[in-house]
Amino acid sequence: MKKGRAELVCTGSELLGGKLNLYAPLFAERLAPLGFALGREQSCGDSLEEIADAMKGALKRSGLVLVCGGLGPTFDDLTRQAAAAALRRRLIYSKDCARILAFNYGLKKLPPNFKNQCLLLEGAKPLENSNGTAFGQVIRRGGKMLVLLPGPRQEWEPMFPNFLDEEIRAAFRRPPVSVVKLRAAGLWETQAEKLLRPAMRRFPGLGFTILAGPGTVEFHISGADGGAVAGAAAVCRRLLGKALYGEGETTLAAAAGEKLKAAGKTLACAESCTGGLAAELITDIPGSSDWFLGGAVTYSNTAKSGLLGVRAATLRKHGAVSAQTAREMAAGARRAFGSDYAFSTTGIAGPGGATPGKPVGLVWFGLAAPRGVKVFSRQFRGGRRQVRACAANCVLDELRKILK
Amino acid sequence: MKKGRAELVCTGSELLGGKLNLYAPLFAERLAPLGFALGREQSCGDSLEEIADAMKGALKRSGLVLVCGGLGPTFDDLTRQAAAAALRRRLIYSKDCARILAFNYGLKKLPPNFKNQCLLLEGAKPLENSNGTAFGQVIRRGGKMLVLLPGPRQEWEPMFPNFLDEEIRAAFRRPPVSVVKLRAAGLWETQAEKLLRPAMRRFPGLGFTILAGPGTVEFHISGADGGAVAGAAAVCRRLLGKALYGEGETTLAAAAGEKLKAAGKTLACAESCTGGLAAELITDIPGSSDWFLGGAVTYSNTAKSGLLGVRAATLRKHGAVSAQTAREMAAGARRAFGSDYAFSTTGIAGPGGATPGKPVGLVWFGLAAPRGVKVFSRQFRGGRRQVRACAANCVLDELRKILK
Repeated sequence: MKKGRAELVCTGSELLGGKLNLYAPLFAERLAPLGFALGREQSCGDSLEEIADAMKGALKRSGLVLVCGGLGPTFDDLTRQAAAAALRRRLIYSKDCARILAFNYGLKKLPPNFKNQCLLLEGAKPLENSNGTAFGQVIRRGGKMLVLLPGPRQEWEPMFPNFLDEEIRAAFRRPPVSVVKLRAAGLWETQAEKLLRPAMRRFPGLGFTILAGPGTVEFHISGADGGAVAGAAAVCRRLLGKALYGEGETTLAAAAGEKLKAAGKTLACAESCTGGLAAELITDIPGSSDWFLGGAVTYSNTAKSGLLGVRAATLRKHGAVSAQTAREMAAGARRAFGSDYAFSTTGIAGPGGATPGKPVGLVWFGLAAPRGVKVFSRQFRGGRRQVRACAANCVLDELRKILK
Repeated sequence: MKKGRAELVCTGSELLGGKLNLYAPLFAERLAPLGFALGREQSCGDSLEEIADAMKGALKRSGLVLVCGGLGPTFDDLTRQAAAAALRRRLIYSKDCARILAFNYGLKKLPPNFKNQCLLLEGAKPLENSNGTAFGQVIRRGGKMLVLLPGPRQEWEPMFPNFLDEEIRAAFRRPPVSVVKLRAAGLWETQAEKLLRPAMRRFPGLGFTILAGPGTVEFHISGADGGAVAGAAAVCRRLLGKALYGEGETTLAAAAGEKLKAAGKTLACAESCTGGLAAELITDIPGSSDWFLGGAVTYSNTAKSGLLGVRAATLRKHGAVSAQTAREMAAGARRAFGSDYAFSTTGIAGPGGATPGKPVGLVWFGLAAPRGVKVFSRQFRGGRRQVRACAANCVLDELRKILK
């Protein structure tokens, strides 16, 4: 068994049907500062044998096993029973848990379905749930730790700062894994890999992960040696240069927004092919109303003329997907909203709409600033969603680059 | 071993770091018509022992095991070697594969990194890759089947219709699992569960899954008995009544769009708190330009007045988040874009912005139709993203309900 290896078991038949399991990265992030890396993730249906089998396998391979879900009050919540079977331990009714639940819910007598939630594995330590009725449980055996957690994120997440960080640290005393996340835009995953290879060679003891988004690339540098991680991050920052737009959990829109806010400037936009996506990325940021005045989604030519003042002659002569239209859209948005800066997008997101000389994926952009309007174009690959996402990120990237 | 049980093994260290694994639902959907349900999903890092161990476990429990990823040309592509170790079979260089690759890429001699991709497990059948260089492999042993697939979706997905559907059907001859997906809006997951309980009781042999989205609920009914699935679906449709907005892969925006298109009518919108999200959901639909004219994202009061003609007195007297402003925004959008219908959203997405009597999550909506404007409000729970997503879905749901 490798030291510092953890495993995650997610339960719920819906995870094998239609629901996306979004938990592995969230748990990985929680575990790194505690000195653990995820070695495997398993998703199981709501079956006692299945969950018990997954748990047993995980406990054989790993020092720390987290099981998420199946602690509710209903018939298909079987994680407690599965853990009892896997560890061959009894389930014991906890009067303390019953008292806490009754107090929290202002009940004199617990209804029957709460009683199932007061069953603890023999020797388990209960973890109070600040957002629900299911207790978590920590069970230690032979230098290993099994943790049972409720399924909903808002229920298990607070258990880390409240109890688990301390429990895990005290039990294992592992050095934290340092993680630096660098975010870049305007380069492909393969370009990024090539660019960063020198850093990866120079720090062979560290973990490097490259994650590609639409027009963006994320690098994670991780390792127990915090100095080496910081050193590698410094090298990577230099190698990335202007492509680096931020670190941690930031976004392109947030990077542009911070610059605007610092300069006391405002932004507006005019979108055709991105159809509201760029505005959505901007307004997703709390407080964006401080610097974002609004946007126009002008899907029709009439809207381009009526709201933004794009001339009918421009649309007739050059078409909606053209440098000239992009220019007039950006200038028009800046005028209509009275903002300092404005950008525009007009292109062919597909699958239909291509014309000779204007293939699917072609997008024209305009960037209007106090000193004038700049236009440029890109040819993106992929389906409708990919083209739109790349276009929105591309114009936000150019915007944050022209801002001081 | 349960018949018709399949397992999925996904490889790639990034799946345990920061990348979401989106594959389980996609594979579940591919496998249902072949008579298989996913019994477990495992995500492993790029380690030969780890992948081999996950494969061995899966093959013990299941008749069909799919392994996705790790077939590329580089040092960390170890799935072929792991399968050889797990099955104790040799890897053999395939001249046929080499010939196909050389032909596809117009090469006389294969470069060394292509050679690794010509290694087949003894007795394996190669699956040609129409979008990449990695062959898939099908290995049969003792009534079971192991399938190795390349990681990128655009590479493994076409292998199903091209080869795998036929291979799996011929090997197992299982009756397909029928699946019906019903989509509803305007009710909570718990309400939906209560509403549908009679159908679940009446068809105990079927699988029912309830998936909650922001303001939407999805029901999957599945089973080998197609007649029973159709019968249960009919009962559920009746129980859901007007809450049912579509079936299969449709969305609320698409449901509204189909009605608009059929009636030859057009739509526009004015968004404040949803900040472009509603327009984005609409323009995500290919061909939406036939009936969607555009939208205004009016984050500032000036934009509300300038673009939509909301009166300064209305904003002053009632505030931006009010029935009156929602009404003038919707009417203004209908006028500005010249559309038959228009909707508006104005609310407090949070975390800031609450005022006495106007808590975070309060959203006012307007729906402008040829016969007049209707306004209504909702109080949503959750964080900024959840409030925005619920608000966008809520107004699209009301829109599709008022359309004939």
